[in-house]
Amino acid sequence: MDDHAVDPHHPPHLSRRSLIATGALAAGALGVSAPAVGAMLGGGPARAATGATKKVTIYAEQLPGNLYGYGLAPGQATVPGPVLEMYEGDTLEVTLVNTTTQRLSIHPHGVDYSTDSDGSPLNASYNNPGETRTYVWRSHEMVAAAGRRFMPGSAGYWHYHDHAMGTDHGTGGLAKGLYGALIVRRRGDILPEKQFTVVFNDMMINNKMAPDTPMFEANLGQRVEWIAIGHGGTFHTFHLHAHRWADNRTGMLEGPSDPSLVIDNKDLNPGNSFGFQVLAGEAVGPGAWMYHCHVQFHSDGGMAGIFLVRNADGSMPPGAEEAIHRFQGHTHTHRS
Amino acid sequence: MDDHAVDPHHPPHLSRRSLIATGALAAGALGVSAPAVGAMLGGGPARAATGATKKVTIYAEQLPGNLYGYGLAPGQATVPGPVLEMYEGDTLEVTLVNTTTQRLSIHPHGVDYSTDSDGSPLNASYNNPGETRTYVWRSHEMVAAAGRRFMPGSAGYWHYHDHAMGTDHGTGGLAKGLYGALIVRRRGDILPEKQFTVVFNDMMINNKMAPDTPMFEANLGQRVEWIAIGHGGTFHTFHLHAHRWADNRTGMLEGPSDPSLVIDNKDLNPGNSFGFQVLAGEAVGPGAWMYHCHVQFHSDGGMAGIFLVRNADGSMPPGAEEAIHRFQGHTHTHRS
Amino acid sequence: MDDHAVDPHHPPHLSRRSLIATGALAAGALGVSAPAVGAMLGGGPARAATGATKKVTIYAEQLPGNLYGYGLAPGQATVPGPVLEMYEGDTLEVTLVNTTTQRLSIHPHGVDYSTDSDGSPLNASYNNPGETRTYVWRSHEMVAAAGRRFMPGSAGYWHYHDHAMGTDHGTGGLAKGLYGALIVRRRGDILPEKQFTVVFNDMMINNKMAPDTPMFEANLGQRVEWIAIGHGGTFHTFHLHAHRWADNRTGMLEGPSDPSLVIDNKDLNPGNSFGFQVLAGEAVGPGAWMYHCHVQFHSDGGMAGIFLVRNADGSMPPGAEEAIHRFQGHTHTHRS
Repeated sequence: MDDHAVDPHHPPHLSRRSLIATGALAAGALGVSAPAVGAMLGGGPARAATGATKKVTIYAEQLPGNLYGYGLAPGQATVPGPVLEMYEGDTLEVTLVNTTTQRLSIHPHGVDYSTDSDGSPLNASYNNPGETRTYVWRSHEMVAAAGRRFMPGSAGYWHYHDHAMGTDHGTGGLAKGLYGALIVRRRGDILPEKQFTVVFNDMMINNKMAPDTPMFEANLGQRVEWIAIGHGGTFHTFHLHAHRWADNRTGMLEGPSDPSLVIDNKDLNPGNSFGFQVLAGEAVGPGAWMYHCHVQFHSDGGMAGIFLVRNADGSMPPGAEEAIHRFQGHTHTHRS
Repeated sequence: MDDHAVDPHHPPHLSRRSLIATGALAAGALGVSAPAVGAMLGGGPARAATGATKKVTIYAEQLPGNLYGYGLAPGQATVPGPVLEMYEGDTLEVTLVNTTTQRLSIHPHGVDYSTDSDGSPLNASYNNPGETRTYVWRSHEMVAAAGRRFMPGSAGYWHYHDHAMGTDHGTGGLAKGLYGALIVRRRGDILPEKQFTVVFNDMMINNKMAPDTPMFEANLGQRVEWIAIGHGGTFHTFHLHAHRWADNRTGMLEGPSDPSLVIDNKDLNPGNSFGFQVLAGEAVGPGAWMYHCHVQFHSDGGMAGIFLVRNADGSMPPGAEEAIHRFQGHTHTHRS
Repeated sequence: MDDHAVDPHHPPHLSRRSLIATGALAAGALGVSAPAVGAMLGGGPARAATGATKKVTIYAEQLPGNLYGYGLAPGQATVPGPVLEMYEGDTLEVTLVNTTTQRLSIHPHGVDYSTDSDGSPLNASYNNPGETRTYVWRSHEMVAAAGRRFMPGSAGYWHYHDHAMGTDHGTGGLAKGLYGALIVRRRGDILPEKQFTVVFNDMMINNKMAPDTPMFEANLGQRVEWIAIGHGGTFHTFHLHAHRWADNRTGMLEGPSDPSLVIDNKDLNPGNSFGFQVLAGEAVGPGAWMYHCHVQFHSDGGMAGIFLVRNADGSMPPGAEEAIHRFQGHTHTHRS
């Protein structure tokens, strides 16, 4: 089954594997490009020596419909941009090519960067129109603090976005699609078979409204990773039908004594991000399952889409075609 | 002390005990009505064999004041509806009788259901006016994943609600009162002595405004379970005076190394739900304690109520009558 | 380096040390002033014997610009008020002197208090103009419940605020600055070197807008504690550049199996509070780092400030002066 054939709205991913496949992965000592952080903080573990350095070039482009996107090659920008991934300890050198006539940047959440990679006008860290600039994102594992506590490492479901178009906070770039998912994993984390990025951006999902919102597809039992990101100026709650996850770092439980809440609805407000993995259709079976903002006038207004769980062999389950047909004809008017 | 005499606003509960008492509980193999989920996912634990199947009939009815409610018997619908409970592994077969002239449904959060029990128009899963339809809600325990991690089970403080009246997202039914609490417990969870359901629904609590909001009552030291649910189109924060809880699955700590936040104020936005147990008046004593939305113009506008903690013998503590009297005369106008 | 010279917006703290230094700390048996709580609840651990009782006098005063503040001495009120701290088991006796012409009070989150210390008009617990009144705040450690679970103790990053000016919910007092941080620690918690209180209050930070918002300063590697509090009627998300924390009680991880989310952006809605510690510039180096509300029109509108991480010796890092200069000239108009 070809993802892109069945899911035209979903952008390509930049996984560790794809980076390796394209030759973009270059092993290297993290310490070369990074400041001598351990020394600056008066000692600490020699974490700077453990990671790999990957290089990636990202093209910021204008798209039809007054949108802007990030892409891994010229002419391939998407909304949202590609999923970027690293392991704790890795460094990602992002060379951003600004092909547009606007000032813009790329600002990451969660990872480590010097002020010149902040992506903010405050730190004069942005690309002028036509300019190419390299941003360095580092990461680290947890570090022992006093007692038995640890300062947290970089692992998380993060995101990156423009911080310079329109305003000094990138409000223009965010409104027009300059955002994407950034995942930092711990070694040993379970890898998914598929990934979906869902961005609640004002009253849209991935800058689309129903019925044009992405239809995410998987086969029954596939391990699917969702990365949910909030942007804009409106509050939202992300709800997925018939699936649930632990409200913690991985979405899974560490065991019976893991106290985490298990949820199927979570606040997704501007700047927030979270991720989780589900087994498609686990305990519920295949079908056309809704995901939507649970703020009522938002879902009624078009913030809804379909998570299509096919049969294990990829065939369509009973009723799914009809559900998709209903969704396509959804007028999102209030009939009360 | 008779709960219903002292707390006319609080609906009756459907506890495991009351189901047993009314003969509604029927032991049965979960696998009978459930799809062969384990087989569908290529193996997995034989969790389908462990649960009981309960049957319950719920009546959706129109109520005075342009409200609608769910109830366990004709003429007994309330806002919110009854608390439904199950243990992980149980199945609940909900036969919904639509006594109204409106299309409506019942959609649960957290539990397992096939598309025909989704409660959504998307999946043609609803009751037409006058129609009776059975929805099957299953549940399961956590399941081992790779490594030492577990895919989460169904346990949680969930809720159910209409998903078909007014719009395809049930906006009309939600606005008018079609909602209630659904609890899935793990075996061994501590059971409460009393339960309160608090629904923040637009600018109302359980579709009431102060001073008509529910006054929840308990005696000093009683173990009280709160289930908080958010609905509508507005953001809220739930605050309870003089009590606190852990922001995790049970509201309690697993021990000194449980890292959970302890809070007394939590976001309660549309589709959210959480629950916790407190010992009424623990470490603070009896009295009239406020619960309210902490968004200032919401509490000023009437999103507030009283948690009346009586003395251990059920008598009124000093000052409580006066506080209730003040609350009843509360005009909720801005005096600044 | 003098904090007050470099950070005029940041109020003085009331730490355990400063209390001791000023002679305000009086050791005493908690049970003396507290009700016999254990007895009321029918037994329980003798936790009442473990804590110290501190006395503090707080002056509520009118300030220029139609603001009101709390302060530890006459003429020293600030917005926000002083950081109040205690250990689980301690009691804080707060004598509030109302020097204003308005009804006002002080209401704490998280800690234990009788109805007469509720700080609410509901319980007739407030100061009339010119009145002095003592509020008693107690705290306790976690208490074993059934099974291996524990009812949570008082430890947390809490806050206190007016609950009586303008409306019965203190909407007038909150709008005008009557709020501050309250920290309850567990014994053994790591103590910070510096503390910053950040209050998102409607469209302001500590009742200021950029570029007049506080500039918080620390030297590279200093352990800095942030206490974030939400107030007013608007939703917000708090974001800090280049730093991250665990979304749990301490902001740190208990170890590799601690499942907590690691975040750099968190909902900060009315009545919410949270805290965390970072090592200033850890893994990123010194510089002018932004903190801001991530709701786009809020940051554009002035809800942003600078966390200045100086070099370890206190000198200014390259680029920081320029960034501060840019921030001072920030017009916060939308240029898209």
